[in-house]
Amino acid sequence: MKKSPGVPEPSSELLQRALDVRRSAVALGQTTDQDRRRALMSMADSLASNADEIVGANAQDLERSEMKGLSTALLSRLKLDKAKLLGAIEGVRKVALLPDPLGIRQLNRELSEGLVLERRTVPLGVLGVIFEARPDALMQIASLAIRSGNGAILKGGSEASLTNETIMKALREGLVNTPVDPHTLELLTTRQESLSLLRLDGLVDLIIPRGSNELVRFIQDNTRIPVLGHADGICHLYIDSCADLEQAVRIAIDSKTQYPAACNAIETLLLHRDIAASFLAKAIPIFKEAGVTLRGDQASQDLGVQIAANEEDWAIEYLDLILSIRVVSDLDAALEHIRRYGSRHTEAIITNDKKVAERFLGAVDSAGVYHNCSTRFADGFRYGFGAEVGISTQTLPPRGPVGLEGLVTYRYRLKGDGHIAADFASGDRCFSHKDLPL
Amino acid sequence: MKKSPGVPEPSSELLQRALDVRRSAVALGQTTDQDRRRALMSMADSLASNADEIVGANAQDLERSEMKGLSTALLSRLKLDKAKLLGAIEGVRKVALLPDPLGIRQLNRELSEGLVLERRTVPLGVLGVIFEARPDALMQIASLAIRSGNGAILKGGSEASLTNETIMKALREGLVNTPVDPHTLELLTTRQESLSLLRLDGLVDLIIPRGSNELVRFIQDNTRIPVLGHADGICHLYIDSCADLEQAVRIAIDSKTQYPAACNAIETLLLHRDIAASFLAKAIPIFKEAGVTLRGDQASQDLGVQIAANEEDWAIEYLDLILSIRVVSDLDAALEHIRRYGSRHTEAIITNDKKVAERFLGAVDSAGVYHNCSTRFADGFRYGFGAEVGISTQTLPPRGPVGLEGLVTYRYRLKGDGHIAADFASGDRCFSHKDLPL
Repeated sequence: MKKSPGVPEPSSELLQRALDVRRSAVALGQTTDQDRRRALMSMADSLASNADEIVGANAQDLERSEMKGLSTALLSRLKLDKAKLLGAIEGVRKVALLPDPLGIRQLNRELSEGLVLERRTVPLGVLGVIFEARPDALMQIASLAIRSGNGAILKGGSEASLTNETIMKALREGLVNTPVDPHTLELLTTRQESLSLLRLDGLVDLIIPRGSNELVRFIQDNTRIPVLGHADGICHLYIDSCADLEQAVRIAIDSKTQYPAACNAIETLLLHRDIAASFLAKAIPIFKEAGVTLRGDQASQDLGVQIAANEEDWAIEYLDLILSIRVVSDLDAALEHIRRYGSRHTEAIITNDKKVAERFLGAVDSAGVYHNCSTRFADGFRYGFGAEVGISTQTLPPRGPVGLEGLVTYRYRLKGDGHIAADFASGDRCFSHKDLPL
Repeated sequence: MKKSPGVPEPSSELLQRALDVRRSAVALGQTTDQDRRRALMSMADSLASNADEIVGANAQDLERSEMKGLSTALLSRLKLDKAKLLGAIEGVRKVALLPDPLGIRQLNRELSEGLVLERRTVPLGVLGVIFEARPDALMQIASLAIRSGNGAILKGGSEASLTNETIMKALREGLVNTPVDPHTLELLTTRQESLSLLRLDGLVDLIIPRGSNELVRFIQDNTRIPVLGHADGICHLYIDSCADLEQAVRIAIDSKTQYPAACNAIETLLLHRDIAASFLAKAIPIFKEAGVTLRGDQASQDLGVQIAANEEDWAIEYLDLILSIRVVSDLDAALEHIRRYGSRHTEAIITNDKKVAERFLGAVDSAGVYHNCSTRFADGFRYGFGAEVGISTQTLPPRGPVGLEGLVTYRYRLKGDGHIAADFASGDRCFSHKDLPL
């Protein structure tokens, strides 16, 4: 096992709590769709009847954090007023209504007469969730976990500790008298515990970090448990020589400015050299008006970009109204740039040449590859998943925006009537491998 | 990045070779089904026309290894005579005929008018394969990699070095004049290189170890790249009080003895206390006849098992004609034993009580859960996958026996006509989320 300095061994008390979550999760995995819907509705009701207490706890967290000098941006993420809380409660009810991701039969095959193999979706087991400031994430993730049949061990930011504890108390109260054991949800409160969570291999099946790039990277580097998510979102937009200029400018502006702090906003614009001059002539004033600072390579500086981009600019996620621009000789040069600096999140091409588009969509190895539209569509809600756990940039599934489907796995169930392998080895029986209706 | 003692940084020469494989793999990922079939057939032809050279190289490896005192078991795995080679070549041709795992549309959804999202299977990229002794694994894995559109960096055992080099030369010769670049396949020859392979994150997408439990565990503990496979296969068979005795004995014998060195053979038999006496009275002589040594807890010793099992026996994969036996008070005790000692590979229950069976299939958290049949069916060929890369005991997919399907991932492709997110935020456009035919 990889020992990471600074990541402590779990205490026996934490191990016991994790084991309790795991045991409750096994029972949860066997509940029906109706059971879990009822549990979520009851969680929502309990949150609603504890709303004043939750908002009060949040006011205390806010006051303490203000005194500690937390930044305005973080304070605004920490704040949970009545309206925001009611929105989050509505979110829990919406998750209850999403289709059940469990028990879906993905394979149904007769292996031989009387020997039938099924592959059915089952919960992962226990999720470990580490999130920063925003206390509404606690309600969202807890409801996604229960809906998908998973236990969850959650750790929120210390700024929100009182809010989180009050929310968790309400959620667990909501589960009393439902078919779901309140022990399915567990809240960690100390930093020590949240670090130890990374060492709970065998008890926690998936870690979901919700926070800064640094948080995600730290977690990825310090656990053997699979991590769902991404550290960087360095998305590219490539404007081909065959692009519709007006469309290209509109999509570039949207991809950069519609919400610059999102992971699916672009950081780098790659321009085919044949269109660079006319594109920049049109785009520079519009970017300027939108408050976007442009940083360019020599060729784009020659065409009016005023600030020089250096090597580091190609590898950074600004999360801000800054955009790096590079002029490339052709599609291959654009692909090479993306391969070198991209983070395999989402890349888009603007072109009216379908062959060029197909080459781009085929060669770019990102979770999302787009043609003639904004990168900002990379999102579970926009994809129609109803909920989003996060966006994964890893190679193996689940990748891209991940909904409830990413919180389940499958199990092979084989039913026979005394079937043994020796009879097949001897030739007394043989395999039919006949697919049955799903 | 996790630094592991003894795992060296890759040399610049190895990085360059890995980069070449990656580049070739991008091109491979865009070939057609026919292209890849042709490449495999040509690989098979080249192996056939180099057969004498391969068998000759193997004779030299065998001679050297015999002089070094390699065990008879390992020598027999190393041996590649003409018949075995022709079988392996036939295997390559069979892989060529398997259905294409690439380009399968898993999702086809109109997000809004003119904005269509597809999810299609694509190759993982580059596989890193580390296998011991058996040189036929090289041909099998190389063909599975090419068939699924993946490059492969392979490292075989040093005993088989001349055989592997000769096979690799033939495979690459076979790829000349096909649409697949010979650089898609790369063979590592030194131990130093194979260790560095574990550090090629970003260039290698999946590590497939084929070898001993120790090899797999070492690899899992020393790489950040996902590892497909399993270290232990500690499979359990639980005989419920409601079992058909004759069936139970037959399945127990098959699960243990049909091929005891396989990972899907059972290591522990759990007996419901109400059936333990009658089962053991019937089974002990049959196990004895089959050469199986039984090790039991106190209760089963009281019923005739002669050797005592200690705590370690519950946690070991014998890979031999040894079976540990424990008498349990009920289903829950059996489930608790499996939860504690199992490796989440395959577990089976024998019972005529359907409710008990359903509880077992629902509560056991293994890749395979079986009812009234032998655990020996846990195998990609028996499941009808046509080929098997390995068996995964991890929670996340792919798990269980993994065929070509486990060597692909997916990509979201979104095509629009100037669509931007701002129009949806403003309400000018709205999402339809209409599923289209696949």
